[in-house]
Amino acid sequence: MKALVSAMVVAGATAAASYAVGQTQEPISPIQPPKQINLGMSELGKKLFFDPRLSKSGFISCNSCHNLSMGGSDNLQTSIGDKWQQGPINSPTVLNSSLNLAQFWDGRAADLKEQAGGPIANPGEMAFSHTLALDMLASIPAYQREFKQVFGKDKLDIDQVTLAIAEFEKTLVTPNARFDQWLLGKQDALTQDELTGYKLFKESGCVGCHNGEAVGGNSFQKMGLVEPYKGNEKAEGRSAVTGKDADRFNYKVPTLRNVELTYPYFHDGAANTLTEAVDVMGRIQLGKKFTQAENAKIVAFLKTLTGDQPSFQLPILPPSADNTPRPTPFK
Amino acid sequence: MKALVSAMVVAGATAAASYAVGQTQEPISPIQPPKQINLGMSELGKKLFFDPRLSKSGFISCNSCHNLSMGGSDNLQTSIGDKWQQGPINSPTVLNSSLNLAQFWDGRAADLKEQAGGPIANPGEMAFSHTLALDMLASIPAYQREFKQVFGKDKLDIDQVTLAIAEFEKTLVTPNARFDQWLLGKQDALTQDELTGYKLFKESGCVGCHNGEAVGGNSFQKMGLVEPYKGNEKAEGRSAVTGKDADRFNYKVPTLRNVELTYPYFHDGAANTLTEAVDVMGRIQLGKKFTQAENAKIVAFLKTLTGDQPSFQLPILPPSADNTPRPTPFK
Repeated sequence: MKALVSAMVVAGATAAASYAVGQTQEPISPIQPPKQINLGMSELGKKLFFDPRLSKSGFISCNSCHNLSMGGSDNLQTSIGDKWQQGPINSPTVLNSSLNLAQFWDGRAADLKEQAGGPIANPGEMAFSHTLALDMLASIPAYQREFKQVFGKDKLDIDQVTLAIAEFEKTLVTPNARFDQWLLGKQDALTQDELTGYKLFKESGCVGCHNGEAVGGNSFQKMGLVEPYKGNEKAEGRSAVTGKDADRFNYKVPTLRNVELTYPYFHDGAANTLTEAVDVMGRIQLGKKFTQAENAKIVAFLKTLTGDQPSFQLPILPPSADNTPRPTPFK
Repeated sequence: MKALVSAMVVAGATAAASYAVGQTQEPISPIQPPKQINLGMSELGKKLFFDPRLSKSGFISCNSCHNLSMGGSDNLQTSIGDKWQQGPINSPTVLNSSLNLAQFWDGRAADLKEQAGGPIANPGEMAFSHTLALDMLASIPAYQREFKQVFGKDKLDIDQVTLAIAEFEKTLVTPNARFDQWLLGKQDALTQDELTGYKLFKESGCVGCHNGEAVGGNSFQKMGLVEPYKGNEKAEGRSAVTGKDADRFNYKVPTLRNVELTYPYFHDGAANTLTEAVDVMGRIQLGKKFTQAENAKIVAFLKTLTGDQPSFQLPILPPSADNTPRPTPFK
């Protein structure tokens, strides 16, 4: 993690130094390297993120559905949970998720720490319980020692677990996208088509919701603003959290950072390609039918939002002890 | 990969230099660093090893059941396959598997290359087909380029896929175990109990099958030599390959390298702990009932066989293209 953070800091510094005159008036801002990371906590969180023993089956880890080899998502329409249950919603990317105003599509978790506890105990996802997860972790001497070292407490609790996972997730930002290089002043970072795509993205109104550092993630919006969205609605959206009928089919606007990697698109994963996603968004959110050429240019712009992917050593997990409760995948 | 191989070479060299007078008469020999690795091929193989798109569901990769965070196994009694099917047998570790005389518990694959094609097309495991896997890979420009660079051919075929995976797997050796340090002459690498355990391991006959560089992996033996093994036999063993009734319940002797990490034990994963495994093996293979103290010392010795785990950056996979066939987990 030291190496990762250093690399990011260096990348940020280099970028700032090279492109002295940046685009400061743009509605999108460059991704910043993570700040004030507790490295010990983040290293522990990385292990937990990759540990399938946090699931009942011993088979599903955070990384199963937020796969850091694949843009922090699972690239499935909806996720696979315990006993191969079909999830109700598309797995959002964990990349840059620290920049979201809230977590989950409906924003039901205020922050990453609150989010991290959800899937572990969700019967349709990891199907475990916080108590069982703690029993498992506490039985493993190397985890015991590492928790004690990081948190300075004798007793493990779920707050420590979710804090550590959240701390690791804060490191999962993706700076240095070509678009950010352009924002920072590197004029030739984008092609003419990509720049035209960005212009269309701004002028058509996409940027109204997809703006800021994460190019989204900072508001809830109705899916189907101009025209109703014809999806197979299993989720009701933000109204499930607020209880307000007006919030029905409202979802957190997803980040467009690394959107090239996070297919399929929308809360229901119904759009397989960026071309399809741009077409549907144009029609139902903006009342605009993009021509094929316009669509292609917007897609070209979107692909410039792919940043440096998190780079770290695959974590090695401490082995279970003789008294560690064993997973029960088939019970 | 360069870093990995260099690190291993350095580790090997250091060890050889420091401990000039080694134990050359022992029936177990130190793990050697991997030799003559084609780095380009191995890097490609690493991506394939981690790519769940080689399965029908898009959810199961080689690493799902041979998890390199967990000793190259899944630590489950039997593995979970497509649609949560329960596998018939315990997932053997991929660590040091290049040292096995043949692959799979029944040795039905001659080498790693032949093995690698099996799970992809097994309806109970990744449930894909070689044709579909190739269609998927060929549709992804970055994979196309990398295959062409490594193999110099215009057309992708399954031999290239399995060769690349096998090349990566050849790097997955675990040198520098404390026991190897002792073998190489570092007298204080083992405690007295561990040395006594090793002496018991040799004198009781365990070493008759568990010997050589991998401490096993180099012969087929009957499970239940002295006393019948009382397992829930779903697999018939080596006879499924040879057709000979004499080979019934014969299995490849598993490597004991990293055995601390590869629980549960036996082809059916029925033994949860090393204590249990040592007890059962003593009784049914050697006709010997180890005392609790003897058992504990043998277990202490076995834990000295944990070597340096493979250390590499989590691979980043190239994204699917618009025309890449999408996984079908729920069909």
